[in-house]
Amino acid sequence: MSCDFLAQALPGVQKLSPYVPGKPVDELARELGMAPASIVKLASNENPLGPSAKALDAIRAELAELTRYPDGNAFDLKQALSERFGVAATGITLGNGSNDILELVARAYLAPGYNAVFSEHAFAVYPLVTLAIGAEGRSVPAKDYGHDLEAMLAAIDADTRVVFVANPNNPTGTWFDSEALARFLARVPEHVLVVLDEAYIEYAEGDKLPDGLAFLAQYPNLIVSRTFSKAYGLAALRVGYAFSSPTVADVLNRVRQPFNVNSLAQAAACAALADSDYLARSRALNDAGMAQLEAGFRDLDLKWIPSRGNFIAVDLGREAAPINQGLLQEGVIVRPVAGYGMPTFLRVSIGTEAENARFLAALSKVLGRG
Amino acid sequence: MSCDFLAQALPGVQKLSPYVPGKPVDELARELGMAPASIVKLASNENPLGPSAKALDAIRAELAELTRYPDGNAFDLKQALSERFGVAATGITLGNGSNDILELVARAYLAPGYNAVFSEHAFAVYPLVTLAIGAEGRSVPAKDYGHDLEAMLAAIDADTRVVFVANPNNPTGTWFDSEALARFLARVPEHVLVVLDEAYIEYAEGDKLPDGLAFLAQYPNLIVSRTFSKAYGLAALRVGYAFSSPTVADVLNRVRQPFNVNSLAQAAACAALADSDYLARSRALNDAGMAQLEAGFRDLDLKWIPSRGNFIAVDLGREAAPINQGLLQEGVIVRPVAGYGMPTFLRVSIGTEAENARFLAALSKVLGRG
Repeated sequence: MSCDFLAQALPGVQKLSPYVPGKPVDELARELGMAPASIVKLASNENPLGPSAKALDAIRAELAELTRYPDGNAFDLKQALSERFGVAATGITLGNGSNDILELVARAYLAPGYNAVFSEHAFAVYPLVTLAIGAEGRSVPAKDYGHDLEAMLAAIDADTRVVFVANPNNPTGTWFDSEALARFLARVPEHVLVVLDEAYIEYAEGDKLPDGLAFLAQYPNLIVSRTFSKAYGLAALRVGYAFSSPTVADVLNRVRQPFNVNSLAQAAACAALADSDYLARSRALNDAGMAQLEAGFRDLDLKWIPSRGNFIAVDLGREAAPINQGLLQEGVIVRPVAGYGMPTFLRVSIGTEAENARFLAALSKVLGRG
Repeated sequence: MSCDFLAQALPGVQKLSPYVPGKPVDELARELGMAPASIVKLASNENPLGPSAKALDAIRAELAELTRYPDGNAFDLKQALSERFGVAATGITLGNGSNDILELVARAYLAPGYNAVFSEHAFAVYPLVTLAIGAEGRSVPAKDYGHDLEAMLAAIDADTRVVFVANPNNPTGTWFDSEALARFLARVPEHVLVVLDEAYIEYAEGDKLPDGLAFLAQYPNLIVSRTFSKAYGLAALRVGYAFSSPTVADVLNRVRQPFNVNSLAQAAACAALADSDYLARSRALNDAGMAQLEAGFRDLDLKWIPSRGNFIAVDLGREAAPINQGLLQEGVIVRPVAGYGMPTFLRVSIGTEAENARFLAALSKVLGRG
């Protein structure tokens, strides 16, 4: 009889249920026998604008080097980030998506016996990376679906090594302001790393959301995590980045796989960072789409959680799973969030005007209001 | 005074020295003020053929989907691998390069108190992933620069969870035959996972190297790791893969980041797998280049380790570091391997005929034989 290699795996790993991504268009197309082009996917908070022409040009220019390993130190991309955000390159860590950043923090600083604090209804990857290490994940009850920062502070103890906070939060879209962030950071014990996940900040930065970078100089325990997957439109390529003190960046870079960010991703990210027009159009399209969905929900007498991301969680007032099934039959993919403790909600990514309209029509039909 | 976030990192992480990759062409170009095109890089075992046209076409066709997340389950690539190699898709794990595969094994099965066994002069990532977890790495003295499989068996104890074996081995190029592999697998305790790293197998498979896949059905503790970075020419994109029992694959896929392999990599890998002509030309170019370098070393009265990879370790009979510096000044990048316990050697990747000639001429000059 051979050995049981599930039982041999580390205890935390045995308990892991893998992250469930948004259903891919091709998968639904296979299941329904539909053409992929006829399916609307608003399930993964992807950018509906389509690729930045400048990013595409940068990728094409890099194709001749396909047989070469990426620059493991990502010289050009770190320089570009450093110049754009005014943070030294020594304080930058790049990830294979910001998922990689979250995991690097867990792998460098968590272990059995330690704990990480995060909010109820927060991004599923926080508990996943914590559990994979065998550390304790402390989910703190949310307040109005958002982070209860006071309660999160109260959950921190001597064994806490990391607090994950998302602003805005996914999948709820909730946010906190600069004063709340300042009060929070001032009270987190200095030995606890704060991972401020700003994956969606470009959709509302400026007057509407605080900029975590403003707190970096004051707080050596702060890690600000961002991504090129959303407003920059590069989800396919996997590039995330974190700003922190050089000491923390040094540690994260030790744990990082030497070639974690591929060459085309590095080139495209440099180009995307310089494409301010694309970013502005992404935000404008998102603002318009958010208003369109809110109006649609109002017409359908549905409640929603106000959001500063590129998605919105709508409350159907009853179990959402059958509605989701009905939407799939209509060729519309959105995201069920029962796994986030929100069984009556669906999370809908903001699409183009046509995609949003198609979703609203399908929802109306499935709800029997059509 | 603020907290020391190096001291806060896990003990294994504090001891990590990051992997030192081959020097990028652009970096040397910046240092020497030379044009990148005038530099010859034979330092990272990259494919000198240049990209497969079919892989490039597949990438271009995928560019319209740049804003979409990759298929986290990589349906098409797993199907293609399954059909090509006759292994069920449920036994496949994909990685962000095979480095990712090695790390997934360590993260799923190693912990403080456990150990991993590998050979002296073996790939640096085996001890790195082991140390990062805080497990013990057992480096077993090599025999004639190759794996001493008997000694590796003897190093296994009740706390051993993983044995890493590479065939051929990097950076030495040494290999073992099918009979040796069969004897080894028969004697590894059933609770110990054997990671058989076949990153270079396409350069010598058939009569010259055993095929690890032939042993999969018999050994549920066997993981065969391979890559698209070498003979398939996709190093820039980061795709590795592992075949194992479905149980082990299930565990590794739980630990895997949900979008660890980017979309362009998935598309290019499918195309590369079908491009048998490119693979045949890669191998023919490698055979010719290996003969060219061996002849050159013979002319220079240098010894080398016979290799079945796409690289060769040449013994300069004296400290290699100054020679390496001289080569860099000539615009030739090869790989010093003092960190692998081989201070008199340089590892040279097989290039095109012109690159090999340029390297040999530079070596001759630096050695004062020109």
